[in-house]
Amino acid sequence: MARYQVILAYDGTHFFGFQRQAPIDRTVQAVVEEALTRLGWKGGTILAAGRTDTGVHAAGQVIAFDLNWKHPMEELQRALNAQLPDDVAVRSVREAEADFHPRYGAVSRWYQYHILLDANRNPLAERYAWRIASGVDVAVLRSAAAQMIGTHDFAAFGTPPRSGGSTVRTVLAASWHVAQEQLIFEVGANAFLYHMVRRMVFLQLKAAEGKIAVADLLDKQKTDLLPGLAPGHGLTFYRVEYPEVQGN
Amino acid sequence: MARYQVILAYDGTHFFGFQRQAPIDRTVQAVVEEALTRLGWKGGTILAAGRTDTGVHAAGQVIAFDLNWKHPMEELQRALNAQLPDDVAVRSVREAEADFHPRYGAVSRWYQYHILLDANRNPLAERYAWRIASGVDVAVLRSAAAQMIGTHDFAAFGTPPRSGGSTVRTVLAASWHVAQEQLIFEVGANAFLYHMVRRMVFLQLKAAEGKIAVADLLDKQKTDLLPGLAPGHGLTFYRVEYPEVQGN
Repeated sequence: MARYQVILAYDGTHFFGFQRQAPIDRTVQAVVEEALTRLGWKGGTILAAGRTDTGVHAAGQVIAFDLNWKHPMEELQRALNAQLPDDVAVRSVREAEADFHPRYGAVSRWYQYHILLDANRNPLAERYAWRIASGVDVAVLRSAAAQMIGTHDFAAFGTPPRSGGSTVRTVLAASWHVAQEQLIFEVGANAFLYHMVRRMVFLQLKAAEGKIAVADLLDKQKTDLLPGLAPGHGLTFYRVEYPEVQGN
Repeated sequence: MARYQVILAYDGTHFFGFQRQAPIDRTVQAVVEEALTRLGWKGGTILAAGRTDTGVHAAGQVIAFDLNWKHPMEELQRALNAQLPDDVAVRSVREAEADFHPRYGAVSRWYQYHILLDANRNPLAERYAWRIASGVDVAVLRSAAAQMIGTHDFAAFGTPPRSGGSTVRTVLAASWHVAQEQLIFEVGANAFLYHMVRRMVFLQLKAAEGKIAVADLLDKQKTDLLPGLAPGHGLTFYRVEYPEVQGN
């Protein structure tokens, strides 16, 4: 029996998020656990770095599980990929320490949010991006992103995993890139509050419209959670970093 | 009553190609004709620049139809997009000459083919790209592409629309671009034979493996259609050019 650390990619379009919930809902966790069970996994539950929401994609979700696997590790990757549906794939497998936990062990998590600037529906680009019709002042977005970097109280941006828990988080990097008709927000933090990245995106757009100033929302100047959330399908969870060198 | 020229984009994943066929099959033509019918279109059939195959995508398919539309043209676009499913969208509408035909009037058609270089399944990138595991010699691809430019007999690459028709076509441009883990083939021609772009891609990959030389397949040195076809989901029909300025 060994613990395996697996990097998982999925297209979130047809999932009710990562975490197993009502038995009828299709979740990434349920699909992966079913695949593992067919390879002789005895269960209980797999561990994951982050619980992505309905519609959110992943290029670098990290999971861990204990399995009695007697063949070479490359064959575990191949066997899992053969069992998984087209919209989920194992990108890499490595053996981890017996006590490795993908969430508690992580030192940072990284997300990308894609915005498509297009006045008309665009079927080839909208699957992984939030389409907005109007132009956006990128200079304001960039200034807003810079203001969020560092250790701040993000109570206005999201809720902590446990009620009453700390809403202080350290944003390591936050930046906007322009690529063709897309605006891409990249952000990394020690950890995120629930819905924090999607609220960051929404509020930066509001700032670009001149309706708010992001600096006014940080550090308990606003203690209430702000309304408005960028939709899940523009978000991709793309990397988790651990103290050791991580094979992503 | 006026004739309208419409640029159409679609994600081909869930279509049995463009052209209406067995009533049970979901085709782009059937879906567009249903939407038009709900706007008062009396039918018979819409005209299209190209008949894309099962799974092939479009960013710039051009269609035309006659419609009695009494409102502003922007409202026609909005009304059609409201009737169309998420995977098809009208990108632009303009009024055309009464005898405009999107296929006969076209002077060139342009395709992109995306190849993803990745040893493992990659759900976020495979929807619009053909994944191949092994490395490819891009210099050979580029040389093969250059050899196809110009007027040649492409009998080995595809079949003409009518049996016995000419297999001579003029390739206006053919090039390979490297972008991250993707190789993108862009090709334009006065017209294409059936399956010609997908066979071009497949045969250039064979050339990159040293198994054939593309120059040996041109101009009736091979008269038989060659086996092997790159899959449809890597292909996007992205532009049609007409003698007049075209609003794409």
